[in-house]
Amino acid sequence: MNNIIEKILDHRSIRSFEDKLLSGEQINTIVECAQAASTSSYIQAYSIIGVTDPEKKAKLAELAGPQSYVEKNGHLFVFCADLYRQDMVSEMENTDLSESIESTEKFMVACIDAALAAQNAALAAESMDLGICYIGGIRNNLPEVSAILNIPHRVIPLFALAVGYPKNRSDKKPRLPLSNIYHENGYQEDKQEFIGQLEEYNETISSYYELRTNGKRKDTWTGQMAGMLGKKSRLYMKDYVEKQGFKKH
Amino acid sequence: MNNIIEKILDHRSIRSFEDKLLSGEQINTIVECAQAASTSSYIQAYSIIGVTDPEKKAKLAELAGPQSYVEKNGHLFVFCADLYRQDMVSEMENTDLSESIESTEKFMVACIDAALAAQNAALAAESMDLGICYIGGIRNNLPEVSAILNIPHRVIPLFALAVGYPKNRSDKKPRLPLSNIYHENGYQEDKQEFIGQLEEYNETISSYYELRTNGKRKDTWTGQMAGMLGKKSRLYMKDYVEKQGFKKH
Repeated sequence: MNNIIEKILDHRSIRSFEDKLLSGEQINTIVECAQAASTSSYIQAYSIIGVTDPEKKAKLAELAGPQSYVEKNGHLFVFCADLYRQDMVSEMENTDLSESIESTEKFMVACIDAALAAQNAALAAESMDLGICYIGGIRNNLPEVSAILNIPHRVIPLFALAVGYPKNRSDKKPRLPLSNIYHENGYQEDKQEFIGQLEEYNETISSYYELRTNGKRKDTWTGQMAGMLGKKSRLYMKDYVEKQGFKKH
Repeated sequence: MNNIIEKILDHRSIRSFEDKLLSGEQINTIVECAQAASTSSYIQAYSIIGVTDPEKKAKLAELAGPQSYVEKNGHLFVFCADLYRQDMVSEMENTDLSESIESTEKFMVACIDAALAAQNAALAAESMDLGICYIGGIRNNLPEVSAILNIPHRVIPLFALAVGYPKNRSDKKPRLPLSNIYHENGYQEDKQEFIGQLEEYNETISSYYELRTNGKRKDTWTGQMAGMLGKKSRLYMKDYVEKQGFKKH
């Protein structure tokens, strides 16, 4: 096992950071690493907004939870799906590209491009012994987040990445059994076997929580998922995404 | 600069592989690295299908282009957005979660989760001195790809990742100027400055192609984008995605 794989496998989300900012050099390296990721047909359909303004960070922290580590970290990156550049292409090349730009296909491309870039950024940060935490919570209220970050049409903030010097080291949460994630030559057909894997995983997760909380907590994974999905959060997303000029057809 | 950042910055897509398969151990390590990525609220909304069957690989290669490296590689991984597991959660926890599962929000979560996992897989492979190439071409015809891979409702193949022993080393393509990707505290407001950055980038790209082709090719980036987006490809995607039970609202 090489040290890159060791670093990848050692990932855990860090939610508490020392009061120390990243240097400009660290930020640039992280962004350059993000940019080095693969991109669909060279489109580079994302942007990254670094947030340093304390007032903006405080507002984002409030909207995202509240989650204190959105405000208190070494640097906050907001990753956006971005097809605004493609509107500029329309203008510069004097051709109307809106039908492509507004397709579900290109919406997927932009989400995937942004996430590939973000994971490079996350690993680059972790390779410098910084900690990271993804923050989907900004999607609680994208219209307000967009107002704070001056987001134009054709851009959608997808998630933030808080980076900083870790204050403490959290535990690694066990993942789904490999056999449930990885299938060979076709998706696993046997539903009972599939459910059996999830039941086995539930036991792993229960033991994990039980051990960490001295028996106070025994959640299962399917229980957690049912709780989370039962909340029906962010159902405004379709309207917002379409208003931003994405996935209209 | 540490060796993880060096590896990230040294990325290039490899489209020609030696005739040598990955070992089971290599495949497992790559999948474990994929699984180590962050995941939204622990949902792990993706699956990976490893394709080894020569007939299936040949069919996928045909659908994706044709692109020979989809057939000829060390291993082919297909990354899927997956909320099938959440249907199983509905069943196991005896609760109807379909409204959440079918939301645009959860569609985004699944695309992002799959891409974060994939980029870990890509870097893990590259750390073993393997080459990788993402293949969005499978989205040319997802109904057929889904039939080949036995994809159930609530699962969408997003892209493939061809991995193998590189036969040759391609060039790194220059990325957008950092100032065009990275904004501070808010999205860049000055449209003329933005267009100026793209014009500058066009010059970089033209020189890059001119040098590589002895002056035969002088594409600009905006020209390439206008050509690509002008083709209006994969406009069936909305119907397919909704048929699979995603982003209905």
